[in-house]
Amino acid sequence: MTEKILGWDVGGANLKAACLSRSFGEVTALERPFALWRSPEELSSLLCEVADALGGDDADMALTMTAELADCFPTRREGVLFVIDAFRSAFPHAGTWVWGLDGRFRTVSEAREAPLEVASANWLASATRMAGVVASAVFLDVGSTTSDVVPIVDCRVVASGRTDTQRLASGELVYTGALRTSVPAIVRSVPLHGGVCRVAAENFAVAADVHLWLGHITEADYTCETPDGRGRSRTEAGARLARVVCADRETLNEDEIDAIARHVAGTQIDQIADAIRQVRGRLEPRSPTAAVVAGSGAFLAAAAAGAAGLEVNGGPEHLAAEEARIGPAAAVARLLRDWPGCPR
Amino acid sequence: MTEKILGWDVGGANLKAACLSRSFGEVTALERPFALWRSPEELSSLLCEVADALGGDDADMALTMTAELADCFPTRREGVLFVIDAFRSAFPHAGTWVWGLDGRFRTVSEAREAPLEVASANWLASATRMAGVVASAVFLDVGSTTSDVVPIVDCRVVASGRTDTQRLASGELVYTGALRTSVPAIVRSVPLHGGVCRVAAENFAVAADVHLWLGHITEADYTCETPDGRGRSRTEAGARLARVVCADRETLNEDEIDAIARHVAGTQIDQIADAIRQVRGRLEPRSPTAAVVAGSGAFLAAAAAGAAGLEVNGGPEHLAAEEARIGPAAAVARLLRDWPGCPR
Repeated sequence: MTEKILGWDVGGANLKAACLSRSFGEVTALERPFALWRSPEELSSLLCEVADALGGDDADMALTMTAELADCFPTRREGVLFVIDAFRSAFPHAGTWVWGLDGRFRTVSEAREAPLEVASANWLASATRMAGVVASAVFLDVGSTTSDVVPIVDCRVVASGRTDTQRLASGELVYTGALRTSVPAIVRSVPLHGGVCRVAAENFAVAADVHLWLGHITEADYTCETPDGRGRSRTEAGARLARVVCADRETLNEDEIDAIARHVAGTQIDQIADAIRQVRGRLEPRSPTAAVVAGSGAFLAAAAAGAAGLEVNGGPEHLAAEEARIGPAAAVARLLRDWPGCPR
Repeated sequence: MTEKILGWDVGGANLKAACLSRSFGEVTALERPFALWRSPEELSSLLCEVADALGGDDADMALTMTAELADCFPTRREGVLFVIDAFRSAFPHAGTWVWGLDGRFRTVSEAREAPLEVASANWLASATRMAGVVASAVFLDVGSTTSDVVPIVDCRVVASGRTDTQRLASGELVYTGALRTSVPAIVRSVPLHGGVCRVAAENFAVAADVHLWLGHITEADYTCETPDGRGRSRTEAGARLARVVCADRETLNEDEIDAIARHVAGTQIDQIADAIRQVRGRLEPRSPTAAVVAGSGAFLAAAAAGAAGLEVNGGPEHLAAEEARIGPAAAVARLLRDWPGCPR
């Protein structure tokens, strides 16, 4: 039995890891922006580097991922196998356990036999932990790129779909987030000069520009790349937002950019609120009336929950907020610690 | 007086040039995909290379551009100046004339004094030529990335706006095209399994994948980069389209991908048809009843014109089709040839 468990959430744009001490229950977490689709061959050495930084290179490994969707992989199956093999190559002597869409862990060889059973299961790790803390809630986890809308009823995750495709259809996954989402993937038009203006279908600005401009996040929170490779100041974010209507800071003033940013943020909130309504509709009359919000976009989650008529982080849900904050990497580590089949 | 005129249309993703013989009126055209935002410093040498290939390095130069919007430039002003300077550096001894939004040419030093007057004026070059051939029409030029909807009434271009921002608001510019447009910038959801599925807000597939899959274009027409760096076969395009709902070719069949592609293409047609209706509404009761379609996305233009109730390339408009096909680079060369102030 190892003293430490390293939990891993391998995404297509970010690598997240959490080191759990079995004795003390403490978690140390670490996040690295990593454009997997650009240099997949670097994953293995990055895993070693992060494990080393967390002091857990001899730990048991608990793994979940979404990276298999990155378009460097022809199919998701190949993506899952690639990630698993990167772990085998990085930690040949560690015990590695892969979290599955049926809510149980698999050995590496089991996971290799049915790769799609462990694809994009990170949301279920967080939600399963949450269901141990709160009996009834909509768990809203809004990250940099996506929003999870996961219902918990009677201390159980009652997701209607398990795959990302099913979840996109059911409203349990919405591809909108607080940082990386491209503005033209959120809105078709924005208010301008008292009327409405179409937007350019180019990646000129992202959600992080919107929320930085509006003061919802700080420059330090803007952890994704900027679309134009320039800086993260409010001035630079404003210039990117102006470009969304093919304008620039010479031709748009502060109020005009404000109106654009507020409209984009409001549309994101509407998108998530619509999904909440869809998810709750399916569960009536047993639908949760409260939300637990989490993620770097918790401010969007809270606004959407309010718009959909849910109470936010009140009562027992308040206690759950800390659990929610730690994310799938820590959740999967704790799930492995408590897993009956876990080596000890 | 030079025997040849080189017309240039410098875009953010493509460089187009046309060599016009003054004596014979013949045009030789050349197009080079060129990601200006990635390596702006290479523009000048590429200009020399293209001029050389067209045998026109001692020609007079007629210039129009949209490249100033590329996000390697902090403002459009700086973008225009950069492009003009690249011409001065590439062709220090040539006469260079820059086409303006007021429908006249400027010298390089005049253009440098008011850069925004020559920004994104390429649509006006094509439309001005067209107005010399057809008395009344909606000129629909659907390119790789954008669609121009320019009304011609009484042999005059009657655009309501001149800047891209004004044109996006008026419906005279729609940021949707036959190749480069990212699928999540076109649709929020697609039909799937008898229901509706949200799409991933990632650049997993582009319009070229849609139209290749549907047989609207060939692999040779797919001249933009593929989003995943893979090939342009129908199988590879289908895999990219499946990824739009976080699926792959293992989990979606041909019919399911067909339905996704048809929905995206239909939405593009609706977007352009809506813009046509907006433009025509402004011009009633003198609105044109016919359309002239052009560009690599002429098939989209024709479908949108039909949906908006316009007759397509019929009667005298038929004659205009050849003029339309040649694009802004050739148009600006012919405009310079016929320009009273042109050196001869």
